[in-house]
Amino acid sequence: MSRRAAKKIESILGDSGVSYDEEVIEHHGYSEWSTSKTAERPVAVVYPTSTEEVSQIVKICDRFRVPIVPFGAGSSVEGNFFAPLSGISIDFSQMNKIVAFHEDDMDIVVQPGVNWVDMNNQIHGSGLFLPMDPSPTAQIGGMISTNCSGTNAMRYGTMKDWVLNITAVLADGSIIKTRHRPRKTSAGYNLTSLFVGAEGTLGIVTEATLKLAPIPQDTSVAIVPFPTVHDAAAAASDLIRSGIQLGAMELMDDVQMQVINQHGSAAVRKRSWKETPTLFLKFSGTTEGIKVDIKRVREIVAKRGANNFVFAKNKQEETDLWAARKEALWTMLSVRPDGTELWSTDVAVPISKLADIIAISKEESGKLGLFASVIGHVGDGNFHQAVMYDPKDEEQTSSVSKCVEKMMDRAIDMEGTVSGEHGIGLGKKHCLAKELGPETIAFMQTLKRAVDPKYVLTSIANLNDTSHQGRVSAVCG
Amino acid sequence: MSRRAAKKIESILGDSGVSYDEEVIEHHGYSEWSTSKTAERPVAVVYPTSTEEVSQIVKICDRFRVPIVPFGAGSSVEGNFFAPLSGISIDFSQMNKIVAFHEDDMDIVVQPGVNWVDMNNQIHGSGLFLPMDPSPTAQIGGMISTNCSGTNAMRYGTMKDWVLNITAVLADGSIIKTRHRPRKTSAGYNLTSLFVGAEGTLGIVTEATLKLAPIPQDTSVAIVPFPTVHDAAAAASDLIRSGIQLGAMELMDDVQMQVINQHGSAAVRKRSWKETPTLFLKFSGTTEGIKVDIKRVREIVAKRGANNFVFAKNKQEETDLWAARKEALWTMLSVRPDGTELWSTDVAVPISKLADIIAISKEESGKLGLFASVIGHVGDGNFHQAVMYDPKDEEQTSSVSKCVEKMMDRAIDMEGTVSGEHGIGLGKKHCLAKELGPETIAFMQTLKRAVDPKYVLTSIANLNDTSHQGRVSAVCG
Repeated sequence: MSRRAAKKIESILGDSGVSYDEEVIEHHGYSEWSTSKTAERPVAVVYPTSTEEVSQIVKICDRFRVPIVPFGAGSSVEGNFFAPLSGISIDFSQMNKIVAFHEDDMDIVVQPGVNWVDMNNQIHGSGLFLPMDPSPTAQIGGMISTNCSGTNAMRYGTMKDWVLNITAVLADGSIIKTRHRPRKTSAGYNLTSLFVGAEGTLGIVTEATLKLAPIPQDTSVAIVPFPTVHDAAAAASDLIRSGIQLGAMELMDDVQMQVINQHGSAAVRKRSWKETPTLFLKFSGTTEGIKVDIKRVREIVAKRGANNFVFAKNKQEETDLWAARKEALWTMLSVRPDGTELWSTDVAVPISKLADIIAISKEESGKLGLFASVIGHVGDGNFHQAVMYDPKDEEQTSSVSKCVEKMMDRAIDMEGTVSGEHGIGLGKKHCLAKELGPETIAFMQTLKRAVDPKYVLTSIANLNDTSHQGRVSAVCG
Repeated sequence: MSRRAAKKIESILGDSGVSYDEEVIEHHGYSEWSTSKTAERPVAVVYPTSTEEVSQIVKICDRFRVPIVPFGAGSSVEGNFFAPLSGISIDFSQMNKIVAFHEDDMDIVVQPGVNWVDMNNQIHGSGLFLPMDPSPTAQIGGMISTNCSGTNAMRYGTMKDWVLNITAVLADGSIIKTRHRPRKTSAGYNLTSLFVGAEGTLGIVTEATLKLAPIPQDTSVAIVPFPTVHDAAAAASDLIRSGIQLGAMELMDDVQMQVINQHGSAAVRKRSWKETPTLFLKFSGTTEGIKVDIKRVREIVAKRGANNFVFAKNKQEETDLWAARKEALWTMLSVRPDGTELWSTDVAVPISKLADIIAISKEESGKLGLFASVIGHVGDGNFHQAVMYDPKDEEQTSSVSKCVEKMMDRAIDMEGTVSGEHGIGLGKKHCLAKELGPETIAFMQTLKRAVDPKYVLTSIANLNDTSHQGRVSAVCG
């Protein structure tokens, strides 16, 4: 059925609009970034150029009962774009246009294939930007669908706070726009926020209007090493409570600091970094305001045992200091031995619990005897742990998996969430069920069934259906 | 049926938990604040004390097919809590407890009947607050259900940005909690935001966890009169683009300034106010930071013809200056002749359109020969117009209604919304349909039907069903 659907789509998009190439298909059903894997692959990858074409594709798939999965940059880590039931992968690389830039309204209308870094570069002259900071490869469609964030979330919130409206193709091929472009509204259900983070299971995002923020007049960076993770977390909490509006507040643990000392880029290694838990602070605002903030921050952190406060004295130093944070993941990747992979995961907990969960998780992963590091978006109670392991070693893989599972359970016990910014994908479906409980999952399933009764939109294999069997029968029924 | 349901509820809540008192019922089905009116009244008002009791009430109403409407402070202006199909009004005044205050996590768990001013006063010592600013009488349940905001929205966003989770009783009486308490998450559908602004039509909010913000170290106020509304709006736009983080930016028109001069409180009338469009600016941050901000703001507004920049030199002056803005609505109410009412409505448009829509709306309402004034939350493109009219004068009522209708159409034409912060209620159902179009309304209806197939939750008489007939038959079966 999937092949017949693909042929039918080809008749609309033309030869160049559909690919059966093995490498292309592999790229749309597998990622080394992702710890979840599936045996299945999509039968074809299709490349629409407009909302109307997406609608036609969905109508065909609906008719043939073929599952659909949207694909953006492919940078997600939980198997979010995989095709566990095969079907058609919709690649948005041909829908990468800025549709309209309303500078005076501080908003921008974009297609889902737009890369956020390119977009910010293009509109830089206006003094405006989209203040999210996920992977530099990420595209708007995926950023919306996983409710992404990154280092700027402490100040600017997450993607849901920057989407004014969404044009979505629904499971039957119909097209809706969630609302117009007001920056504020209390008119009707908040459909925009319903699509944000739904990972393509309620509708396919084909256009969105995003709010933009003014680029801060100035920024600066400070690096603050602490004796322990608890001291760093306590200082972070003090800073949040102080009301000083930091641009970002990131934690790197002792392991991560060692990695930087040993394997950072030349610019980063110029400096000798203290190998203890370290806060990376970004200041943003007016030049004079930042001076005031730095002074106050220095006083606050000193009370938590930070006597080695380093701040950037010029723009070059600022870039060099922040580079250490920016390079963290790439440095980890570059030092891993051949054949090993990185199990990268994240959770978020209420702020006061962050130091505890980091300390316990480090202790647990330490017992594995594997290389593991922690990076935290501490302003939000969100942190990432990355563990290096050999996926061919079954015992090792199983112990890492158990260790990650325990971290999820711990986050739930602390009234937190199993995913701070990576979505659920395939990898965390069972964790979501544990986090929210059967009644709340049932409510989500009610919404899903109402909107997509045939389960055509199976991206991430149905967020809300934790029974794989149920899923297959519901989709292929 | 409704009476039988009420009797059944009485057997659970006891005598004191159900009222049939005429005055009480009138208070729960009519409001002079609201321009929409209905002939129907609820048959009884019930007073649950717990989520469990609300669940039992809903199960009874579900069994007897009796419509339910939740009631908070009764301060909404679009007939949001009326009972157009009669039924049972659930009053949350007995569910007014702070359940838990997690100071270190900067969140608070509350029941829906908590008044936000009381709550902020109670937790003041912690240095934290909920940064919303709706009517001082408003309660958390209503604030969530209409996605309220007020003067602080420019800096802090709207209610949806401050709700971490919601416990809701669904139409069949089952209870769900949308999630735990992490400040950030990308796990599963955003049910929290779906309930915010749904005006009780998808579930009844019985508990919520709210994020809190640090109370700014310091604040200040400046008053800036402009030659025209366009100058004021242009200056507002410049200020937004400058990246200076103002606490609030409010516009009062020439009429509103006259009212203040003539009828303001003694403290306000000490000063002679310029009777031209005026921006009220609130600064918030650190004391030193504010000094820097005031200097920059003064430079920016001067370029738009504001040569009469007045800022508060001490705390008393700050209170006096802001009082003029705070008193605006009450002053209007106090000067209206006996028998007249105030038609108060709001819309929001993209920022660049705000000056135009205010100017045209003032011109249109000017033609009515009635007293009309404008207050704008200009930082969000949101403004309120209030027109005094005699509801017993049919011709006058009809012209005001037409004038308001035109304002809604204009907001829609400008890609705005028919409600910035008052919700839809009964009064704006037809406007919502115009704003969003049939496909988007149909999607909302799909959600509503899935979640409440018997239309038990008829609060605001079914947001999504624009056919009154359909509604009656759907509910009364």
